[in-house]
Amino acid sequence: MTTTTMTAPIVTTRDALRAQVAGWKAAGARVGVVPTMGALHDGHLSLVRMAKSACDRVIVTIFVNPKQFNNPEDLEKYPRTERDDAAKLAPFGVDAIYVPTPDQIYPDGFATTVSVAGLDTMLCGAHRPGHFDGVATVVSKLFLQTGADQAFFGEKDYQQLQIVRRMAGDLDLPTQVIACPTVREASGLAMSSRNRRLSPGGAERAAMLYPVLRGMADALSQGAGFSGLVPQATEQLQAAGFDEIEYLELRAASGLAQMEHADRPARVFFAGWIEGVRLIDNVPAGPA
Amino acid sequence: MTTTTMTAPIVTTRDALRAQVAGWKAAGARVGVVPTMGALHDGHLSLVRMAKSACDRVIVTIFVNPKQFNNPEDLEKYPRTERDDAAKLAPFGVDAIYVPTPDQIYPDGFATTVSVAGLDTMLCGAHRPGHFDGVATVVSKLFLQTGADQAFFGEKDYQQLQIVRRMAGDLDLPTQVIACPTVREASGLAMSSRNRRLSPGGAERAAMLYPVLRGMADALSQGAGFSGLVPQATEQLQAAGFDEIEYLELRAASGLAQMEHADRPARVFFAGWIEGVRLIDNVPAGPA
Repeated sequence: MTTTTMTAPIVTTRDALRAQVAGWKAAGARVGVVPTMGALHDGHLSLVRMAKSACDRVIVTIFVNPKQFNNPEDLEKYPRTERDDAAKLAPFGVDAIYVPTPDQIYPDGFATTVSVAGLDTMLCGAHRPGHFDGVATVVSKLFLQTGADQAFFGEKDYQQLQIVRRMAGDLDLPTQVIACPTVREASGLAMSSRNRRLSPGGAERAAMLYPVLRGMADALSQGAGFSGLVPQATEQLQAAGFDEIEYLELRAASGLAQMEHADRPARVFFAGWIEGVRLIDNVPAGPA
Repeated sequence: MTTTTMTAPIVTTRDALRAQVAGWKAAGARVGVVPTMGALHDGHLSLVRMAKSACDRVIVTIFVNPKQFNNPEDLEKYPRTERDDAAKLAPFGVDAIYVPTPDQIYPDGFATTVSVAGLDTMLCGAHRPGHFDGVATVVSKLFLQTGADQAFFGEKDYQQLQIVRRMAGDLDLPTQVIACPTVREASGLAMSSRNRRLSPGGAERAAMLYPVLRGMADALSQGAGFSGLVPQATEQLQAAGFDEIEYLELRAASGLAQMEHADRPARVFFAGWIEGVRLIDNVPAGPA
């Protein structure tokens, strides 16, 4: 028995996408979407796998959203690899790859912003002004353009996941937000498009992050206070080569309020820089 | 032949509304919505008439949206007359009146704001901070809760109309925004729920506004510059009893840029206070 893999059709306009989805829905299909900025890695592919198992039809979107880059250099450096991406998706039987031209997302005179208060000021929001407004705005559009029943987001970008879920519920969007576990390299390093910018040695040292965070989570589960754990963790991360730590915080898994003891579901959140690359990660702590 | 009029069913939850609309859509009906804050007058009823002629099913929504009142006293004073409203709608054969309880619009933890840059800072936006964010947010929700194909808004609230249209297009909402002409009393006074708060004499004097604005529009059409017209108009309005003029401006009909000559489609915009009541109005000027 042979398995044939076919590159999914690439759709570039909203109207073509909607026509395609309308046909699926008329046939009773449940439609899933995996929003990405391309540069696909196994983390994205695990979202695609989840979507395929939960939905009848799956759309992967690829759009490098200028509005969520507060730093123009970061936008410039962001890898664009659409042909590779389509090839990586081929084995999964994705039904459409939506690669909108910029005018399909931000037409002339575009002026609307969707923002989520409360969840967007701490952690990454404090360090990337406007970032989450950009995320909430483009994701609301992708949900409405695709008309998807379910959307799949990774827990790696946990704050984004919380914001997108709140936004979708608050605006009565038709799309349910599904959280998917972080996928890691064998080394423990969370998969990220940014990992490509690390040297092999840098990637190896960055992998120290995961055991440090896991160690903090274990200590928290045994009743330790968070602030007492920070100095040693910081030292370990600096020794690994993280020359700037943006944040290292314990926050509630729902609502993201700051915590000292993991007496309810929580996550340890980290962002920092190594070899000029900004990496983020988070792990669960306390009761599930 | 007799015409029977029936009070339309009142729906109070989003899910009940959606179930109703899904049935209509399955039968191929085109659905219209007329969003209101109740206190219905002939202006609203003309929107309902337009909706009935353009759509197979019409929903009137009644929700006094706290988020669009920057002034708590104004919110407090806003008339609430749901039973009267339902009676007024009875002759029109409206298919549902959606009167959501506040938790259907702003559930616990609600945190999302939709805002439209550029169109929201001048005119009423300059005098009612946050007002148009409140409008854009609730209207995006009403469009998504009703799933309406078309929504009907009056030109009386011209800036609101422009903002809602921009927002619906920008966010790919499923709802087309239809502009409907301002309805006026025999005296020329634009219909408004706020007119109820005027004394009979105040209403009569407030009716001076329309001929003053029309006179400005006529002079503009004959080539007059706007700034030269303002002093006499101001004097006439003050004489009529408008003791504060918030703004009197000529702006482009599309995009609302300030203008001096009506050499392309424009509108003369007014807001002012009489007997402690804030009234707004606008008229077209220049080429249509």
